[in-house]
Amino acid sequence: MSTLFRFVSIFLLIGFTSCLNTKIDRMAKKATSPVQLLDSPSGQLQLIFELKSGVPTYRLNKGPEFVILSSDLGVVLEDEDLSKNFEIIGYGKRDSSSTWTQPWGEVKEIVDNHQELAVYLKHDSGKRMNVIFRLYDTGLGIRYEWPDQEAMNEFVIMEEKTEFVLADDHDSWWLQAYIPNRYEHLNIASKASEIDTAATPLTMKTDNGLYLSFHEAALTDYSSMSLINRGENKLQATLFPWMDGTGHKVRAKTPFVSPWRTIKVNEDLDGLVNNYIELNLNEPSKIEDTSWIEPGKYVGIWWDMHLNRKTWHSGDKHGATTEYTKEWIDFAAKHGFNGVLVEGWNETWDGDWTKNADQFSFTESYPDYDLEEVVDYAQSKGTNIIMHNETSTGIENYESQIDDAFDYYQQLGINTIKSGYVGDMIANGQWHHGQYMVRHYRKVVEKAAEHGIMLDVHEPIKDTGIRRTWPNMMTREGARGQEYNAWSGDGGNPPNYVPTILFTRMLSGPFDYTPGVLDLLLKDNEEGRPKNRVHSTLAGELAVYVVIYSPLHMAADLIHNYENYPIPFQFIKDVPTDWEYTKVLAGEIGKHVTVVRKDRNSDDWYLGAVTDENAREYVVDLSFLDDGKEYEAIIYSDGPAADYEVRPLLLIKYGQIVNSVSTLKINMARGGGMAVRFKARN
Amino acid sequence: MSTLFRFVSIFLLIGFTSCLNTKIDRMAKKATSPVQLLDSPSGQLQLIFELKSGVPTYRLNKGPEFVILSSDLGVVLEDEDLSKNFEIIGYGKRDSSSTWTQPWGEVKEIVDNHQELAVYLKHDSGKRMNVIFRLYDTGLGIRYEWPDQEAMNEFVIMEEKTEFVLADDHDSWWLQAYIPNRYEHLNIASKASEIDTAATPLTMKTDNGLYLSFHEAALTDYSSMSLINRGENKLQATLFPWMDGTGHKVRAKTPFVSPWRTIKVNEDLDGLVNNYIELNLNEPSKIEDTSWIEPGKYVGIWWDMHLNRKTWHSGDKHGATTEYTKEWIDFAAKHGFNGVLVEGWNETWDGDWTKNADQFSFTESYPDYDLEEVVDYAQSKGTNIIMHNETSTGIENYESQIDDAFDYYQQLGINTIKSGYVGDMIANGQWHHGQYMVRHYRKVVEKAAEHGIMLDVHEPIKDTGIRRTWPNMMTREGARGQEYNAWSGDGGNPPNYVPTILFTRMLSGPFDYTPGVLDLLLKDNEEGRPKNRVHSTLAGELAVYVVIYSPLHMAADLIHNYENYPIPFQFIKDVPTDWEYTKVLAGEIGKHVTVVRKDRNSDDWYLGAVTDENAREYVVDLSFLDDGKEYEAIIYSDGPAADYEVRPLLLIKYGQIVNSVSTLKINMARGGGMAVRFKARN
Repeated sequence: MSTLFRFVSIFLLIGFTSCLNTKIDRMAKKATSPVQLLDSPSGQLQLIFELKSGVPTYRLNKGPEFVILSSDLGVVLEDEDLSKNFEIIGYGKRDSSSTWTQPWGEVKEIVDNHQELAVYLKHDSGKRMNVIFRLYDTGLGIRYEWPDQEAMNEFVIMEEKTEFVLADDHDSWWLQAYIPNRYEHLNIASKASEIDTAATPLTMKTDNGLYLSFHEAALTDYSSMSLINRGENKLQATLFPWMDGTGHKVRAKTPFVSPWRTIKVNEDLDGLVNNYIELNLNEPSKIEDTSWIEPGKYVGIWWDMHLNRKTWHSGDKHGATTEYTKEWIDFAAKHGFNGVLVEGWNETWDGDWTKNADQFSFTESYPDYDLEEVVDYAQSKGTNIIMHNETSTGIENYESQIDDAFDYYQQLGINTIKSGYVGDMIANGQWHHGQYMVRHYRKVVEKAAEHGIMLDVHEPIKDTGIRRTWPNMMTREGARGQEYNAWSGDGGNPPNYVPTILFTRMLSGPFDYTPGVLDLLLKDNEEGRPKNRVHSTLAGELAVYVVIYSPLHMAADLIHNYENYPIPFQFIKDVPTDWEYTKVLAGEIGKHVTVVRKDRNSDDWYLGAVTDENAREYVVDLSFLDDGKEYEAIIYSDGPAADYEVRPLLLIKYGQIVNSVSTLKINMARGGGMAVRFKARN
Repeated sequence: MSTLFRFVSIFLLIGFTSCLNTKIDRMAKKATSPVQLLDSPSGQLQLIFELKSGVPTYRLNKGPEFVILSSDLGVVLEDEDLSKNFEIIGYGKRDSSSTWTQPWGEVKEIVDNHQELAVYLKHDSGKRMNVIFRLYDTGLGIRYEWPDQEAMNEFVIMEEKTEFVLADDHDSWWLQAYIPNRYEHLNIASKASEIDTAATPLTMKTDNGLYLSFHEAALTDYSSMSLINRGENKLQATLFPWMDGTGHKVRAKTPFVSPWRTIKVNEDLDGLVNNYIELNLNEPSKIEDTSWIEPGKYVGIWWDMHLNRKTWHSGDKHGATTEYTKEWIDFAAKHGFNGVLVEGWNETWDGDWTKNADQFSFTESYPDYDLEEVVDYAQSKGTNIIMHNETSTGIENYESQIDDAFDYYQQLGINTIKSGYVGDMIANGQWHHGQYMVRHYRKVVEKAAEHGIMLDVHEPIKDTGIRRTWPNMMTREGARGQEYNAWSGDGGNPPNYVPTILFTRMLSGPFDYTPGVLDLLLKDNEEGRPKNRVHSTLAGELAVYVVIYSPLHMAADLIHNYENYPIPFQFIKDVPTDWEYTKVLAGEIGKHVTVVRKDRNSDDWYLGAVTDENAREYVVDLSFLDDGKEYEAIIYSDGPAADYEVRPLLLIKYGQIVNSVSTLKINMARGGGMAVRFKARN
């Protein structure tokens, strides 16, 4: 008798060949057991799939604790309920281990280690649907696949039934979905049970100290997912409808895949912020040569309008004049900014421009603005004009001009467009987040890529990581930007705004917040709204450049303000927008945070810390610094009496020599912050 | 970016080294997820372990169907409830693939391919308990381990909580537990819901056509398990108690293991009968040289007493006389039988011997029986005396003499003991199946092995496969033997008895049924019970030698009957008791069965078919025969008018030449059968 003990892979299955998401009719060895388990690469998380009486379900646990209790999966089609009456026709499993490099980003290298489980289902109608799970040590992606098949060709999804059943009534930070204004709201902090319908990303903290985020990845030709509270800790996916009376959510044709539904699970805020599973769940770059894609900072004609000093429309106060643009070009060139944004340059801003959705021109300038002249002038000074495309939600109008306009821009040498979709709904009645607009936003990204153009989208579709596939999709809004401080009737963005959004909206991707307003009291603002101001301190406003990641960061303030504040302005000039590493050193959602990031193009590190309306003092250790290297820490700190409400402008700049065994005292005034450049010596 | 796809083993764990069950404190890589999955080697079965709110549970499925729904595990100790409040401290997994050879048996080679999952649990009291699952393609073994630990030394199990929750109310064949008479009852066929408390093995058939058997393996120092019906398809283990008022079920000391609880799952009756997981779950042979262990057939002084022609006790009709024994020795020698059993040879059968538990001698003969003389005579004729040890349940008495007695037997050259434990309870009040007797039965096996003695135990502990470890443990009773036909007030064993027990009692191991009574009408029986008879036909009685497996088979009838029936007696002489292969060609539990077995020592095959009170006719194909070989089929068939009630003796013997592409018509009278020798032609 010979007995051979081996350590083996236990499961059956396997055998599919598609490397990414393009082939969706993978065949696996037949295995029909109703339960399958998937352990993440290092065993941090475990997924349990189970077909329960014909209903596909999943659970997720971390160690002994369930993160997600048994949750149903499926969709309802117009002609079939694909959320029950399934049988299993097979499973596939595989693992993947890779590292890829972001052409730009908050980190340079991203590791993609995951285990994948494909569940091949057959509905009693004969329709086949697959559920794909990708399990990382820090989260889960779930996607539906409808392979090419005789039983399904064109189909319509009326609702998605994906559930996320929480293990408890967690602390949650969320935005209400299905209300106008494109994610430009303050986060609500509440128990999960108080959620109505939440936009994603939706952030939670468990009593065990886990940080969860629910979102989606690779939203390509589908409708955006929100999460509706079904009671008893159950959240369920809901999709934005087509607004044409059909109730359709998604119109599709096999082979077809859904976006990935994602659950991030991290033990600390650093892990949460550095969780890149959504980028990993997007396909690799389709742009082979990315050398023309350059992160950077820009200035321009924008804050003027928010302060009512200039106008988008024509007339005496028209901002976008050739002359004023040249002033900005000179300023940008002098201080090393990569671009000058000029809004209100084209025809049709006059009158109520939000009603001009069908009239905007994307090639014709106002008479007082010579586009070609300013573009030439900028290029001669070594900077660029950032083209502004405000659609006013006129999608048909924009799409009818886009080829000609982008050809023209490319011809001019313009490499960046800031686009806008101002309006509560799209002009033809669609939601910004329905399948119609998902398709549009994606189309513009692809057209821009063809024309060598980077995009900064305002009033955007939410970020689901497509910058991995289209790295010309640089940054976007989709949150309350700086302009709310200029005119918002609710007083603007409170001090806890930035310490919140780093852990909510920012989890989805870069945010063009347009920071850098140094005239915090907005002396330049119009008389009618004297209470509006920036609710921060100078140090806090500088820190935003590090805390909020954007590959294109604006320095939003006016030229004379930068000239009046040379000390903080130096930090704005110094701070990079492309990073090698990012680390959260300390933080509490909605209260404070200290972030450090390492410049991708030097050995320098930068630190940004911000706090809510409470002053804070704590010590961080600088062990993130390279071992054995000395740094000159150039510290921009709140002055001893600084206070965002009464003395926001008290800034202290000082230096000290530090290394990786040093500590640094973070000292923040009420509503203040701290910004540090760790300048490598050698 | 390089992406590497590999197929890998997913789970964590692993890393224990014990090859079998002796080391029970294996350490595994820490993994604390509450759910683990185990797929059987070819994926036929899947085990799902889950710690549910501190309670260890398991499920078992075959393909898409659950065989066992969520079932709790655990035991209740005298001082602690080890069925809840557990946490997981780790898992271990390993697989094993081996083949081993039975020194004798129903098949020669047994494949042992399994996957093992060890679940390391810690109770909130600090006590550690492991649950070990061994999963085969055809069944599951579950065992508890209590490793050596400071928190546990000596302990008492008050009850076991192992559950088996059925997926449906299956058809069941079972014996009532906790009633006297040592498994000597007819099986009850009912729905599972009608089970009260069932002895094991317990057989079921599902609506999907799966055959299930619930039993245990390696019952070494524990109490026997029965299954109590808790309603709603839930069976729960229950253990025979110590009968001393303590309520103790098991007295133990760490390190300690329970027997394996087994669930066999097969798609057909051939698989069920050839399911050897219980042998696999026993440890390999402890007897290195097994050459002295020889299967065979025996005759002897036994049926005489059941017919009241002779007596066990002394007097005129005393069976065990030197003279009568020599007649049997001559008969055995003439016809090639390996042994002659002589019952009633020793002192103390006089009076009501069932009350003489403390008086039996195991070395002292009645005056009319010269043990040494008959032993010498037998050996001189090339056969052996089979020693008879009736304990009358006097365990202390037996154990006090056993060393001397076995020494004496060994000295005489006796190689086989038939032992007996007649009594409803053991003389000291214990159950035959409690831990006290488990220890005793095992002790006798070990002592016999030391003395080169094979055992045939009547009124035994149930078989749990220890013949693998102690291959001198040949066969046993533990069912209604032939003697019930002689005197049972209920008329004896009905025709459906053998077609039932092959799929119930026989699943646990060999059965010394003592077949071969050719005087089916029992003309020799005493006048007072003329209705008693064998409820079969001659062909059916012959078939029992093939259908019922026993390495020691008796030819039970009297010498003159064998002389009167030379044709059927030839089959009894021919049929072997050691097999290379066993196959069930056709069958239905309790109705009929056709079994073929291949002689281990020749190329011959043998077929046995039996039916219940219904005549049956069907064709089997002979593809089991070796390809390209010709066989002379010597067929013993019921005559055209045969009927077990009115014409049981109508036997036809005929021959035909067949090969592996031939078919054979099985033609059985009411209560009849068929026996075939396929004699290989060269």
